[in-house]
Amino acid sequence: MGCFDEVCYNGELENGVSLFGCSEVEDEANTVAIEDAVKILLLGLGEDINREGLRKTPHRVAKALREGTRGYRQKVKDIVEGALFPEAGIDNNKIGHAGGAGGLVIVRDIDLYSYCESCLLPFQVKCHVGYVPSGQRVVGLSKLSRVAEVFAKRLQEPQRLADEVCSALQQGIQPAGVAVVLQCTHIHFPDIETIFLESSLKGGAKIHVSSGSGVFENKNADVWADFFYLIKSRGIDMENIHAQGLPDQCWCPSLSTKVSSKTGSINPAMVTAVFSILKSLGEDSVRKELAGTPNRFVKWLLNFQSIDMDVKLNGSVCGGIKPLNAAGEVVNNDKQIYTELNLPFWSQCEHHILPFHGVVHIGYFLSEGFSPIGKSLLQSIVHFYGFKLQVQERLTKQIAETISPLLGGNVIVVVEASHTCMISRGIEKFGSSTATIAVLGCFSTDIASRILFLQSIANATSSGG
Amino acid sequence: MGCFDEVCYNGELENGVSLFGCSEVEDEANTVAIEDAVKILLLGLGEDINREGLRKTPHRVAKALREGTRGYRQKVKDIVEGALFPEAGIDNNKIGHAGGAGGLVIVRDIDLYSYCESCLLPFQVKCHVGYVPSGQRVVGLSKLSRVAEVFAKRLQEPQRLADEVCSALQQGIQPAGVAVVLQCTHIHFPDIETIFLESSLKGGAKIHVSSGSGVFENKNADVWADFFYLIKSRGIDMENIHAQGLPDQCWCPSLSTKVSSKTGSINPAMVTAVFSILKSLGEDSVRKELAGTPNRFVKWLLNFQSIDMDVKLNGSVCGGIKPLNAAGEVVNNDKQIYTELNLPFWSQCEHHILPFHGVVHIGYFLSEGFSPIGKSLLQSIVHFYGFKLQVQERLTKQIAETISPLLGGNVIVVVEASHTCMISRGIEKFGSSTATIAVLGCFSTDIASRILFLQSIANATSSGG
Repeated sequence: MGCFDEVCYNGELENGVSLFGCSEVEDEANTVAIEDAVKILLLGLGEDINREGLRKTPHRVAKALREGTRGYRQKVKDIVEGALFPEAGIDNNKIGHAGGAGGLVIVRDIDLYSYCESCLLPFQVKCHVGYVPSGQRVVGLSKLSRVAEVFAKRLQEPQRLADEVCSALQQGIQPAGVAVVLQCTHIHFPDIETIFLESSLKGGAKIHVSSGSGVFENKNADVWADFFYLIKSRGIDMENIHAQGLPDQCWCPSLSTKVSSKTGSINPAMVTAVFSILKSLGEDSVRKELAGTPNRFVKWLLNFQSIDMDVKLNGSVCGGIKPLNAAGEVVNNDKQIYTELNLPFWSQCEHHILPFHGVVHIGYFLSEGFSPIGKSLLQSIVHFYGFKLQVQERLTKQIAETISPLLGGNVIVVVEASHTCMISRGIEKFGSSTATIAVLGCFSTDIASRILFLQSIANATSSGG
Repeated sequence: MGCFDEVCYNGELENGVSLFGCSEVEDEANTVAIEDAVKILLLGLGEDINREGLRKTPHRVAKALREGTRGYRQKVKDIVEGALFPEAGIDNNKIGHAGGAGGLVIVRDIDLYSYCESCLLPFQVKCHVGYVPSGQRVVGLSKLSRVAEVFAKRLQEPQRLADEVCSALQQGIQPAGVAVVLQCTHIHFPDIETIFLESSLKGGAKIHVSSGSGVFENKNADVWADFFYLIKSRGIDMENIHAQGLPDQCWCPSLSTKVSSKTGSINPAMVTAVFSILKSLGEDSVRKELAGTPNRFVKWLLNFQSIDMDVKLNGSVCGGIKPLNAAGEVVNNDKQIYTELNLPFWSQCEHHILPFHGVVHIGYFLSEGFSPIGKSLLQSIVHFYGFKLQVQERLTKQIAETISPLLGGNVIVVVEASHTCMISRGIEKFGSSTATIAVLGCFSTDIASRILFLQSIANATSSGG
């Protein structure tokens, strides 16, 4: 977004969202309120809010949240005004539809990010918007995307997002009809108490929703068939669209998570802090969909609280070590690299209090007298270091340093991750991912071994592993 | 980008780019200068600058160009300042590299758009940036992307872009080394005079470049091997990286296009207008790389000049029509749909003076007494209507209306396009594409026929056709 989209308005906002002023003073006050709330959350996690990595976190979070919900301060009218162009339809003496009268127009694959109103985590949206022009006029194509962005940049739920985009475009450009199809993906909601039981959390929760107005109001209208065929290669069709009216429970994983025994003891100051954030973003904090949001967000956050994991972990790791050269163990010292690839992890970026998640690849040589480490112990170590306020570089180092003494010191760890903060914040780099390496012992000097290991990751990736 | 990136500075800019002030007054003056220049270009194309579709084009172009070159007004120092975090390396008693001392960090697949300094058209960049931390500190990951963005938002050439990002990061965060690999794609440079001779212009011109500093300065350093293995799935390796020092001619298609006979007669007012745009963007318009740019840009633009194509076309089309029921012609009226899919086209968006290009799919029924139209004539019709200042909706309609009377009136046309204006402007929706339909005669009412045709497009797409 350019600063062209960052205009503040003093008028009222459409779609029933209550107005909050956007004067510099109010803006500043809202930002400070969010910063204060974030400090309370960090304290609730047992963090030292003055340590260097966290010192500016409240400011960064406030900035990111304000930016990520800038849709509350934007008006559709200002976007579409002046963007309607006269465009002839088919000659009167011919039968048919085209141009500014009847020819379907679709903008496909618009990448958006929105915030889930149930848990405050961002969710990803692939948006397809179409309309049928009428009145001999068409709208500038980028406006469809800009209007979708206005509603994505609010606390949302997929069906409501689709409906709001649809109705705003219908009102704003008054065409024969508007169609919106969204493919939404929500990060899974792992829980440190249950993660070791879950079979697979890959890929996130997915839902397809649609909304139609005018000629698209009837789900069985022929024009929907045209629409679906033109987005067909994306694996969407009328059959796998979520039916309107199904309860939200199908969507946000936090809503289907069983209430943990912990919930009762959630720090009320943290819950109040999240309510204060909602208010400062311009949300109606008594809206019923938001009633449980602070609790759910705090519960998610508490997965990452600062407890002395290292102590816990050392106990568990010590239990896992096999004694030196025990009977029946094969000791490998002929330079065989042991690898464990694609161990999933979840973590929370300490700079933005936003999730980052991905996979960890571990390789090692066994020194004489050591035994291989089982996959489940490696996965536990990964989870232990993941469930913290973290940075990826530190996570990588901690995993390597923890494993190293158990094997004799020759370890390589690669972490590949998607950072929500790279995507949902201003910079919005959707496809980007981050790789970090830690090399210990001979891996730091032996390029041939490193290459062998990195090649095995590349092979696993290309085979879809 | 949020407005956080839109800060204007009064200090000097790094990397030798001369400063231009960014006070509101100067900003306004530069914008007006660009608007005036765009008006001259439109007049040079034979356009009526007061027609509704073009009335705001000078303003939109000025806004887009200023935004697309905002990197001239940004400083790397302001981006990385305060974004360096202390992060421990490996314990002194251990051998290895990790965290804030030696562990390679790569952010991969950063989507960028830049403007080609040789022809002023935007080019697409997939950027991979890595660095090796030193001094027990790491930089916030999004800063790598933000710094790359600063240099992408200038008039560029791939190798220079890579070098500037690399050296700015090396100076800004002072790590052990920085590596930058760019995969760049430049739109082909079709020429209305030669397009009918070209066998294929699909996919654009591509180049891979790299730049390294510190530990990456030596192309044969082991750390480059680590880097390349971690971006391996993108089809890049050390062998297919463009060697530094090769002439630009390999890159921008405009540089290898033969000088057309027309070049001598290029409207000097248009060339002067482009020089004025370069100056208003803050560029050093006497920089030698820019010397031929105005000529090349005007030459490209003149492909889209408003001439009475319709007259030309009618001549050509009439010649192509076979007489009613000629001997040897098979007349099909048993509802067989004739299809011609994936005819490439190039056009120029009249709202932004930026290319849009893609494919046209044509389907029709033959009425009795008409003969099928050959692919080359359909392709000619597509090119004729493409090479104009256009909007996709009108292009779709014009193709349908031109073909319709040649076949008896039952025609369907689908245009699928990527719009540079959707990508290189503020909204920056990289993967998006636009589909438009025109339906004439029975296709406007017969959904089964429409579906049959749309299904054939979907099949051709999924089989990579």
